[in-house]
Formats: sequence, C-alpha cells, structure tokens
Amino acid sequence: MPTLILVRHGQSQWNLENRFTGWWDVDLTELGVEEAKAAGALLAEKDLLPAIAFTSLQRRAIRTLHLALEVCGRLWIPETKDWRLNERHYGGLTGLNKAETAKIHGEEQVNLWRRSFDIPPPDMEPGHAYDMAGDARYAGIPIPATESLKLTIERVLPYWQAAILPALASGETVIVSAHGNSLRALVKHLSNISDEEIAELEIPTGQPLVYEFDADMRPGERHYMKDR
Amino acid sequence: MPTLILVRHGQSQWNLENRFTGWWDVDLTELGVEEAKAAGALLAEKDLLPAIAFTSLQRRAIRTLHLALEVCGRLWIPETKDWRLNERHYGGLTGLNKAETAKIHGEEQVNLWRRSFDIPPPDMEPGHAYDMAGDARYAGIPIPATESLKLTIERVLPYWQAAILPALASGETVIVSAHGNSLRALVKHLSNISDEEIAELEIPTGQPLVYEFDADMRPGERHYMKDR
Repeated sequence: MPTLILVRHGQSQWNLENRFTGWWDVDLTELGVEEAKAAGALLAEKDLLPAIAFTSLQRRAIRTLHLALEVCGRLWIPETKDWRLNERHYGGLTGLNKAETAKIHGEEQVNLWRRSFDIPPPDMEPGHAYDMAGDARYAGIPIPATESLKLTIERVLPYWQAAILPALASGETVIVSAHGNSLRALVKHLSNISDEEIAELEIPTGQPLVYEFDADMRPGERHYMKDR
Repeated sequence: MPTLILVRHGQSQWNLENRFTGWWDVDLTELGVEEAKAAGALLAEKDLLPAIAFTSLQRRAIRTLHLALEVCGRLWIPETKDWRLNERHYGGLTGLNKAETAKIHGEEQVNLWRRSFDIPPPDMEPGHAYDMAGDARYAGIPIPATESLKLTIERVLPYWQAAILPALASGETVIVSAHGNSLRALVKHLSNISDEEIAELEIPTGQPLVYEFDADMRPGERHYMKDR
C-alpha cells in the first residue's frame, strides 16, 4: 500500500528565537536534532520504513531527513532535493522577530501576513540582510520576492504531481522532510482543507504524519504516527 | 574546469578493530566523524565546493559525505547512491580480524587475498553471520559471493562511465565518497596504474584527493587537497 510520511523539520534556531525564517538557511537547534532522531526512532518502532525520500534545499529539512534515516537504518534510500519544497518565502519580514514586528506593524497586520491565505508580506528588497540571491543553490531558480500561502501552494503542488505522486504510485513508502508551509500545501491538497482553514492548521515539528493511499491513489485520513 | 574530489570514508569501527569489512554496514567511529568533518573544512578552506555528489549504499561513506557537505555548506547538492561504489566484497573473510585470519590461514595467504589483483577470498557461504542477502537495500542487486580487486573494478568502471564522468563533463565539481577499493578502481583508471601496483596503493581515510580535467576530459596528476 503506498504510504506517505510527512515530517516537518525539527526546531531551528529561528523557531527558537521566534523570527520569520522563510528561505534563510537556519540550522537545527540541539532540540531540533533530538526531534529528528526521535522521528527516526518512531519510524523504526512502527516498522514503517521509507524507500524514497524528498526534501527541500534547506539544511534544517535535509538534516532532519538524514538524522531520521540514520536512526531507522535507511540512509541508503534515494533522496531528491528540490526548492519547490522550501519554506514559504517571508519576503521583507525575513529575519524579524515576530513580537517586534507586531509592535511596529501592529498585531493585526502581522497576523494577516502570517495567517491569510493569499496576502503576501512586503517584498524582500534587493540588498536585504537575508537575501538568498547569489547563493549557488538557487542558480537558475526564480527566487520569489515574497510568498503568500497560496503562492507557496502553487509551486509545491506541481512538484507533488510531477515527482512525489509518481514515486508513491510505484507502491513505495515515501518520506517528505519539509517545512510548515510546504507541508500545509500537501495536507490542504490531500485532506481537502479550505483556504480559510489551512492557515490555522499547525503541523508540529518532528512528528511523522502519515497518509495511506488506496489502489486508486486516493489518500485515506491523515494521522500522526505516534497515535497508531 | 571539471574537478573530481575523491574521499575515502573516515575510520569505521571495523577499521579500528582491524577486521575485514567489505559490504557489512559498519558505522564510523568518533575519529571517523572528525575525519569527515575535517574533510569538509578543507573543502571550504580551499574553496573547492562540490556541486554534485556520488556515494555508495554503505553508511560509513554516506555519513562521511553528509558530514563533509554539512561543514562546507553544500548539503543541498544532488546526491546519488549506488552499490557499484560499495567496498570490495570480502567474501568469507567478512568480519574476521586480520591478525587472527593470518594465524589460521598463514600471513602469506591473507596477504595474497588482500593484495593480489585477481585472486578473490573464499566465497561467503549462505547463512554467514555477515551476509547482506535479504537486506532491502540490495533488492534486485546481484550481491557478489566474493570479489577480487579486479572484480571490484569491473563493476565500478561502468558506473564511472555511465554516471560520474557525464556529471564531470558538464563542467561541474564532483565529489565521490566511497571506499578503499572502489576508489582504487577509479585511481587505477585515471592515473593509469598497473595491476601489480594498484593493490599496494594506500588511500588514507578522510583525505580529499583531487583530479582536474582538461577540455578533452583528460585527467591531470592526482594530488591531495591538503598539499596545495
């Protein structure tokens, strides 16, 4: 039975500092490392071992994947990295502390940027301290100036269709290690969640979330691996 | 200029215990982890950053790759794993301590198995304690019963031609994290070393070895990165 395992990366340094991260390549904290290892231990315990892996171009997701695979003895599976699984690009908010941003722009405005479906934050201006332009990993890739959740979904879903779904359809267990918003894109699609509701859906770090597919590639109910 | 970086995995637990390892999936020691990180630091220091990675299906090589790439900020590059880059299969010697084996079979015989070009050790018999048959990673792969260095070369070189050379020919810097004997296969080919001499060539763990290629894809002299 084709099975999809989604994992949001473990705690990052800017999760801890409550800063907008987006495409900035922040590393895991020690807690984040432990969360990733615990995810791998759970895969081993439940004997749900991935055969194919996908992740983003960001180290917090890649390291989470590697740490989890190491613990469950699956470091050897094929792994594909793609920018389309990156976190939502937070534009000009990147690097800002969320509480400070609320003081400047007002809590209402910040919540709108964080939680609305289609209102992107202000653009990241050229020369911004956390601009990824010029980073070799994004050569030839159209780095967004900013993204709403809607724009994030619009680049995640084509990749789902083109790369992840075919891997699943071959009958394999597939793991995707990614980010809060790129995973929201997948969960919205697979669980048919409305535009209004999806932004409120919290996906906890390091908790493997599972979908089983039937023979027609229809996903069942999603569930956290720890609950079964 | 296309550049090839070869790295032999850091010290493994069975390197330390002086046991024949072959295809058994032994992990790195703490020293091995440090060697891998030092290799990554050297790549960063020399600003010779890989754009494409190849490794075996064995965790000591995969972890060496990941640790080195993490340190030099290149975790995001595409990575392909293939059994053809695995260590030479040591057949029935797998798991044996080299000194003990010499006591039983005589030092001359053991040196012949270790150092001859085309004499393989005895086959690994079915049910051997370190048989990898049944391991999911080798499903569909013809696990050898034993290999001489010659047999190892005969599966490494087609992979070089089919996968690694084309990546290099695109002008990229390519890193291969592999094993003493799969790397000997590449060095023999690229440096045109005789059958007699190649088995004596020692490739130290965790020391990046570099070939630069000219426009006709002819390799230059090999050198250790630390020496330039």
